[in-house]
Amino acid sequence: MSYLPTRWTELIGRPANDIDTPALVIDLDAMKRNLARMAEFAKKHGIRWRPHAKTHKSTTLAKMQIRAGAVGVCVQKTAEAEVMMAGGVYNVYISNEVIAPGKLVRVAALAQTAAAHGGQLAIAVDSTEGVIRLAQAMNEARVNSSRAGNDVANVATVIDVFVEIDVGQGRCGVEPGAAAVTLVLELRKHPALRFAGLQAYHGKAQHLRSAQDRREAIVKAADAVRLTRQLIEAQGVAVGLVTGAGTGCLVLEAASGVYGELQAGSFLFMDADYALNERDPAQPQFEHALFVKTQVISTHSDHAVCDAGHKSHAIDSGMPRVHALSPDSALDYFNGGDEHGILRPAAGCSRLPGLGRMLWLIPGHCDPTVNLHDVMIGVSGGLHNGVVQRIYRVNARGALT
Amino acid sequence: MSYLPTRWTELIGRPANDIDTPALVIDLDAMKRNLARMAEFAKKHGIRWRPHAKTHKSTTLAKMQIRAGAVGVCVQKTAEAEVMMAGGVYNVYISNEVIAPGKLVRVAALAQTAAAHGGQLAIAVDSTEGVIRLAQAMNEARVNSSRAGNDVANVATVIDVFVEIDVGQGRCGVEPGAAAVTLVLELRKHPALRFAGLQAYHGKAQHLRSAQDRREAIVKAADAVRLTRQLIEAQGVAVGLVTGAGTGCLVLEAASGVYGELQAGSFLFMDADYALNERDPAQPQFEHALFVKTQVISTHSDHAVCDAGHKSHAIDSGMPRVHALSPDSALDYFNGGDEHGILRPAAGCSRLPGLGRMLWLIPGHCDPTVNLHDVMIGVSGGLHNGVVQRIYRVNARGALT
Repeated sequence: MSYLPTRWTELIGRPANDIDTPALVIDLDAMKRNLARMAEFAKKHGIRWRPHAKTHKSTTLAKMQIRAGAVGVCVQKTAEAEVMMAGGVYNVYISNEVIAPGKLVRVAALAQTAAAHGGQLAIAVDSTEGVIRLAQAMNEARVNSSRAGNDVANVATVIDVFVEIDVGQGRCGVEPGAAAVTLVLELRKHPALRFAGLQAYHGKAQHLRSAQDRREAIVKAADAVRLTRQLIEAQGVAVGLVTGAGTGCLVLEAASGVYGELQAGSFLFMDADYALNERDPAQPQFEHALFVKTQVISTHSDHAVCDAGHKSHAIDSGMPRVHALSPDSALDYFNGGDEHGILRPAAGCSRLPGLGRMLWLIPGHCDPTVNLHDVMIGVSGGLHNGVVQRIYRVNARGALT
Repeated sequence: MSYLPTRWTELIGRPANDIDTPALVIDLDAMKRNLARMAEFAKKHGIRWRPHAKTHKSTTLAKMQIRAGAVGVCVQKTAEAEVMMAGGVYNVYISNEVIAPGKLVRVAALAQTAAAHGGQLAIAVDSTEGVIRLAQAMNEARVNSSRAGNDVANVATVIDVFVEIDVGQGRCGVEPGAAAVTLVLELRKHPALRFAGLQAYHGKAQHLRSAQDRREAIVKAADAVRLTRQLIEAQGVAVGLVTGAGTGCLVLEAASGVYGELQAGSFLFMDADYALNERDPAQPQFEHALFVKTQVISTHSDHAVCDAGHKSHAIDSGMPRVHALSPDSALDYFNGGDEHGILRPAAGCSRLPGLGRMLWLIPGHCDPTVNLHDVMIGVSGGLHNGVVQRIYRVNARGALT
């Protein structure tokens, strides 16, 4: 950690009220209920879940999810995979493309580490060049391990590879259909690469407000997956698994019949943004479990100022919401810069909080909010009257490469 | 640091081309020219400068600025002040309100540390309650030091206090005029607090696009300062210093005749956002000196995807600009989420970068971008052909409280 301003562990056992601001606080009771709901949902649908660790970046929370039934974790970055394995999480899927030769050396080393611990590394590809470079890195790692006299398990390591298809996100991924088949056939030329299935994540669909729009988007995504799977299978190649899904649509991906694995990560904390989606009745009722605690440092006739700005919470998905105020004293949060928030009475209200008043913000987007903090402070028994139970390090904070 | 994926110091002496992505890179030649321009500007106007360390969060860069003539640094957070003093920077101004009693204990301790090292701590206030709490913390620290038998210099520590007035920002600060006078008189009742002058920062004015609009805003701000100063002086109290100013308007604040100290910090790196301001001819020609190095990881017929998203750069002031491309291959950057950027040909262009192509992004806003990284990699001799000279730790990364 670059900076630990207090010995965090000293907070354990103290009232939540003693937490200085701004600070990132987990409502542990709510988080555990979210986890139980997700485990139950996956069980009911007979579907694997591999939550995205880019949400919490914590090896402790990753292991908690695996204990609850997750098959492992997804990450977006090689460095995040390194952090997860250093913390004892060996079933890791880098659900993203890696192109830099220097990074692929690290990926190959991670594949060996995973295998040595009975785990498995997986990665996504969306280009022939990506496949060739990955195979080369795996082969070089095998040669080097062999020369170094490492044991057979390490020497013969194979990496699971998912071919990413673009099911509507418009970001990475080959076009569904023929382009995916070509890539699968290229992939199968390389013995160190095992074709594991399709990566089919529709990020944009997760945030469509209307339940009908989300339904239509995932129907299209599932059709694209089905078409691609048929074409691959027509070549005599099995598609082991289709992986994807997020917190906004997981009920749809699970019901589609094509997805075998859910990657949703945000359900654990629930963003303010996700709560704006029109709810699908089949969706588990996830609760907000992550908060930025803040306090009022300046008061004025028409506004108050709190000490949490966008160095405390991400604003890519909108401003945070002010949590758990009485209906007559609701507040709207406005951007006050890096270190300040401007609070004004919500429509129909007129009361402003006093100097020193503690408030709880629900971040618009939890993933990049977590990445702004060194630790998450776990509180049970409620935010206002609860007690600090545990400190979670954001181990993979700043794991960018 | 929560995570150091490579031994950064091993990069020293290696080509900039070897830096893996995404990474935060300083063009040291450009940064040094910006520093020289600022020092020259301040000298020419006979004005002090106390750059905001919230920009770089680095004790090494703070000391470099002091060697170039800065009188010390500003910070926004108590924890940033702690990091600065731990790194040997003892003239520190917390240009923000602190209300939490627990933080004020730390502020008082920092005032003692500064005094013990021949430095001086300063802080802003905008409420009677803030003044009373600060005085109480200073008195308690004095009593505790005295009991502990500390030397006289520590025991008698005084903190410099600036009364913040709102000169148009609409955030913290009392109204200019009578309210400020009341606060100054309250402040002077407390022997541990020394009234040092007025904090008069107009943040919004810095980003007004039109030079005329900025001029009008700073004329109003200077009028508010003048009025307030006259009223305070009419009470027989001297206003030692008026401090404020940012990179967008510093030429105006310097010329106003009321500001005695410039707090501008961003000039060192120069945000993409600031470069959109219509330039005032008197403004020093600051250059972009901070970049996010990124590379293309996925290519498509109409777009390419790079590996830097908003976990690599802040987007509160807009998307980053893609730097130093030939006129016929300019690119526009679109938000691709936490870890991806979408690149499309700019108007009039049609070329897209190939897989693995390295690109340099100019962040919309440097301060919160720096806060996303563990280190800044200093390169001299140009970004493309230069050599890594030095690694700067972002010491105060995550120093939120």
